[in-house]
Amino acid sequence: MGKVFSTERKIRFSHCDPAGIVYFVNFFDMVSGAVEDWFGEAIGFTFNEMHIKRRLGFPIVNTGCEFVRPCHLGDKLVLELAIAKLGRSSIEFSVLGQVAGEEKFRARHKVVLMSLDTLRSMPIPEHLRAKMEPYVAPQP
Amino acid sequence: MGKVFSTERKIRFSHCDPAGIVYFVNFFDMVSGAVEDWFGEAIGFTFNEMHIKRRLGFPIVNTGCEFVRPCHLGDKLVLELAIAKLGRSSIEFSVLGQVAGEEKFRARHKVVLMSLDTLRSMPIPEHLRAKMEPYVAPQP
Amino acid sequence: MGKVFSTERKIRFSHCDPAGIVYFVNFFDMVSGAVEDWFGEAIGFTFNEMHIKRRLGFPIVNTGCEFVRPCHLGDKLVLELAIAKLGRSSIEFSVLGQVAGEEKFRARHKVVLMSLDTLRSMPIPEHLRAKMEPYVAPQP
Amino acid sequence: MGKVFSTERKIRFSHCDPAGIVYFVNFFDMVSGAVEDWFGEAIGFTFNEMHIKRRLGFPIVNTGCEFVRPCHLGDKLVLELAIAKLGRSSIEFSVLGQVAGEEKFRARHKVVLMSLDTLRSMPIPEHLRAKMEPYVAPQP
Repeated sequence: MGKVFSTERKIRFSHCDPAGIVYFVNFFDMVSGAVEDWFGEAIGFTFNEMHIKRRLGFPIVNTGCEFVRPCHLGDKLVLELAIAKLGRSSIEFSVLGQVAGEEKFRARHKVVLMSLDTLRSMPIPEHLRAKMEPYVAPQP
Repeated sequence: MGKVFSTERKIRFSHCDPAGIVYFVNFFDMVSGAVEDWFGEAIGFTFNEMHIKRRLGFPIVNTGCEFVRPCHLGDKLVLELAIAKLGRSSIEFSVLGQVAGEEKFRARHKVVLMSLDTLRSMPIPEHLRAKMEPYVAPQP
Repeated sequence: MGKVFSTERKIRFSHCDPAGIVYFVNFFDMVSGAVEDWFGEAIGFTFNEMHIKRRLGFPIVNTGCEFVRPCHLGDKLVLELAIAKLGRSSIEFSVLGQVAGEEKFRARHKVVLMSLDTLRSMPIPEHLRAKMEPYVAPQP
Repeated sequence: MGKVFSTERKIRFSHCDPAGIVYFVNFFDMVSGAVEDWFGEAIGFTFNEMHIKRRLGFPIVNTGCEFVRPCHLGDKLVLELAIAKLGRSSIEFSVLGQVAGEEKFRARHKVVLMSLDTLRSMPIPEHLRAKMEPYVAPQP
């Protein structure tokens, strides 16, 4: 319990808006990319295998983000992902964004396992759930 | 009290993902664009005037969205924007997304008025607040 | 011969980069969107019907753009699309971008008709070709 | 003469379109990002220093790309950047995109050095030019 998956993004010119800071929408793309990385690298279930071969998906049920401080061109953004709640077919991630130890945003991102053929939710298979459980954050 | 600002988006090929539905990040861009339209068309304060001439901005404090049903290529998405809470320097919008009367998503999107020079929040000027007040949704 | 298809885009905050002008990549998205609009509105063959129902696509073979002047937040960009060359299975579009009559960019954009099932190019069907021909630009 | 700058991108879910392949616009973003990486890592002149501190930019004059084969979800795309032509104030890059040694696209991308204050082109300073010259491709 309590493992954290960490991944880094370089803040690029194309992420930034006329105010010179990251356009907030790009943070959601990075959160979603962190989830994609976690599935591939931590769970061993790549999005390619998931979507194309197994015809499964994890569509987003809800997501939200609090933006604490702006990010700037050239920042090295570290995203730290954990599981706030692991349901029968859903996963609610918590994702922190930091630059040099300074908190930039805090997101909650809930996805649910779905068959792309029936378009119905499905229970998360046991062999995947076992790999996910170490990332469930201890309750405070 | 209770006015709603409505704007439409055509769901394009480029909005959709390999599952054939709108990639959720694009909804946040549309919500943000609806806010931009509302400032220009309903309040008479365009983003060009705001950011470039007045050096003011409305950065996002927090945002969240519940995705009720997927959107598809070719859908005509109607976004309906109202104000859930009008603070001293902040505005919390509620934005509904619908296609042919069917609810697709429900977002909350909170912004705060800031000087781009001092990077400090500022009270919303009275002449703008007066134009905003009709959009404050009646409390249930 | 010589018809031009015209469509307009509002330059939004999210299109612009830290230099305050449109990030060039967004122009390619707009060119591609103009092609999508042309298929739906001028040819009567929407991307939804094309991709989902008929399992056809028009992938891009090559594209290029000359950027003449920058575009700014709030600009009303008019895209004018014509066909530079109509091949057996390919279409080479020329797309001009203008704001208030001032040229902003000039693009060439070549697509080819393909079956999404066989992944092979196909001749453009006669009933579509007949609707396309009026947009072929007269050779100078 | 003849050095090549190489950088890698993982093809993500968000890069792909309903046909399951990379939406072409994202390749231009990757080409532009490769140029950004090259400036920072090979020339030692980061976009942050360039744009924010020195008030210089390298806006795009023209760009074009030939798409040879599609890219798919999960591909490791290698971008190889060289200079096709080094002008007085302009740089024309050639960028190849490959996956596992298979060519995916070939781009030409021309930028020009500009002062963000005067909005005029400037000659490339000698100390930068000296670092760029090794990347000029030998003429065939």
